[in-house]
Amino acid sequence: MSETNPKPAVKALVFDVFGTVVDWRTSVAREVGAVAAAKGWTVDPVAFADRWRALYQPSMDPVRRGEEPYVRLDDLHRTSLITLIQEFGLDPLPADELEHLNRAWHRLDPWPDCVPGLTRLKKRFTLATMSNGNVALMLNMAKNAGLPWDMILGAEPARNYKPVPSVYLTGVDWLGLVPAEVMMVAAHNGDLAAARSLGLRTAFIARPTEHGDKQSRDFRAEDDWDHAVNGMDELADRLGC
Amino acid sequence: MSETNPKPAVKALVFDVFGTVVDWRTSVAREVGAVAAAKGWTVDPVAFADRWRALYQPSMDPVRRGEEPYVRLDDLHRTSLITLIQEFGLDPLPADELEHLNRAWHRLDPWPDCVPGLTRLKKRFTLATMSNGNVALMLNMAKNAGLPWDMILGAEPARNYKPVPSVYLTGVDWLGLVPAEVMMVAAHNGDLAAARSLGLRTAFIARPTEHGDKQSRDFRAEDDWDHAVNGMDELADRLGC
Repeated sequence: MSETNPKPAVKALVFDVFGTVVDWRTSVAREVGAVAAAKGWTVDPVAFADRWRALYQPSMDPVRRGEEPYVRLDDLHRTSLITLIQEFGLDPLPADELEHLNRAWHRLDPWPDCVPGLTRLKKRFTLATMSNGNVALMLNMAKNAGLPWDMILGAEPARNYKPVPSVYLTGVDWLGLVPAEVMMVAAHNGDLAAARSLGLRTAFIARPTEHGDKQSRDFRAEDDWDHAVNGMDELADRLGC
Repeated sequence: MSETNPKPAVKALVFDVFGTVVDWRTSVAREVGAVAAAKGWTVDPVAFADRWRALYQPSMDPVRRGEEPYVRLDDLHRTSLITLIQEFGLDPLPADELEHLNRAWHRLDPWPDCVPGLTRLKKRFTLATMSNGNVALMLNMAKNAGLPWDMILGAEPARNYKPVPSVYLTGVDWLGLVPAEVMMVAAHNGDLAAARSLGLRTAFIARPTEHGDKQSRDFRAEDDWDHAVNGMDELADRLGC
């Protein structure tokens, strides 16, 4: 019946995570700084974090284009990390220390509004991640940060990366819903545009400090998304939670 | 490093659900009874529930044997329900009422020890379902019953049904763990035997009333499983939670 109603009730919220829910830049820089102190690396931890994140989108492109089979984000992050240690001219890390630093992405801190806001939203909606992070990364992050997800969706179920449509649509299918019953929540206008083009509802959360003084876009909603808010608590207000 | 250690620490618990966590028989019989009262059906609701469940294992066999593509359990349940309504000589239901009754499996009540026990276990372990139920079924059940899963694994990620090895192994892989770091928890000795053969740890929970006076097996642990307990709270005790 939902299929014949142009505006069925929203039943599930799916979330971008890096930047939308967690402050990757501060968290990764902190971990890079700790390693630098221990190993005597001379490096700007924030610059290192920014470069690591800059390699993120290009690292997924061969999978998106179908040129490479799906590999999970933990593996792409590791490849980028090894590249960066060379690029910054730093002493290589032993395997266990490399793995620990690579898992900094499993230990990212949430923006302060997220745990209280998500806890309110969870009472009324099914909450799932719709991230390019792999399941283990998302589960470890949730355990560490107290994020109350009901389900991890995103890259791994579809074995591909956003904004490839199958990533969003596999998630909607697994939820047993139609796209209009699912709202994508993200701090990135491009992510919302991809979701809307597939029929999902959309909510923009402004995260104007995601990239610190390097932020060049996504300061505000750039289309008439269903909601545009400044935090997860405000989204809970809007959705009557 | 875990690969070289024969007994790494358990990091995640994965759970059979129907019978182990929820009392499907009482719950389904209650919903069948409500429909019978409303529709004037003359039927023993418990007998109907038992027959519905009896069609469960055979309905999955063509998928397990590779003769049919994966279809989710909601669809197998619906096919069985239509068969049973005919078999019991009952008036057919309109589509929306059929769908509501089919989703009785989304509204099963947990055994009383489960929510308190799982809540304790969740503080220390990642908790995931390892059920033949599809993701939407498991999520709706969790929301309805307050089951605090971190993740839904099982049939849908592997597009197959237990005890096919890929179901267990896909779950372990998505958790980013090796089998010995994952403990399968079930009320069915056969499920534990399949999991152990793949290297998972095992915990048996006795549910001697799952099938009421029709129960013929699984009264007790039939092998030296790592743990054998009488409830989720006792499992939490054993695992130091």
